[in-house]
Amino acid sequence: MTESVDDRIARVRFDDAGLVAAIIQQWDTREVLMLAWMDAEALRRTLTTGRVTFWSRSRGEYWRKGDTSGHIQLVRGARLDCDGDAVLIEVEQIGAACHTGTRTCFDVDDLHPQTALS
Amino acid sequence: MTESVDDRIARVRFDDAGLVAAIIQQWDTREVLMLAWMDAEALRRTLTTGRVTFWSRSRGEYWRKGDTSGHIQLVRGARLDCDGDAVLIEVEQIGAACHTGTRTCFDVDDLHPQTALS
Repeated sequence: MTESVDDRIARVRFDDAGLVAAIIQQWDTREVLMLAWMDAEALRRTLTTGRVTFWSRSRGEYWRKGDTSGHIQLVRGARLDCDGDAVLIEVEQIGAACHTGTRTCFDVDDLHPQTALS
Repeated sequence: MTESVDDRIARVRFDDAGLVAAIIQQWDTREVLMLAWMDAEALRRTLTTGRVTFWSRSRGEYWRKGDTSGHIQLVRGARLDCDGDAVLIEVEQIGAACHTGTRTCFDVDDLHPQTALS
């Protein structure tokens, strides 16, 4: 039997602001789409409704991804990391993940590292 | 010509603690391996040395991944997100990424979401 959602959320180590980092990944291509933040309630909604919900630090409100843009995220999986301070949410992304219109939030700004092989 | 590393780092919006979230992804399989934290100096070392370096919040020190375990991360790419508060580092992971010995830090704890399709 799957443990209760409260028991699952109780394993998360939220930070001093009550938030946990949420990495959003397209489930099949494994693209990393974005990183945003969830408090316990946003995570509860994400785990129980099939739609990804964040806490917006800038706006101070819940933000169900796609309600404005139509670019919703349908939950396919969710995992907590080994020390409980990051979650990885696998989704089916409808449309662009980024508010700028690009597929992911990491598509534009290349930091041009020195690579180990160069 | 590639802009200077200082100019690239200047685009990052570090949080009040001077840190940015760093998502580490295996470059070819696209597995998300872990999430950890970098300050400006850890990011500079990551961008310039070919080896991933973090700031350990718990130990209060720089932590070049693999120096103790041998499980090093060789940098293959690095990207900044649209609002500058997360970096995605693509790596060649040698051995296990997680200190528990699993391939990724997300392998063990399934949060069993209600999926949109179930």
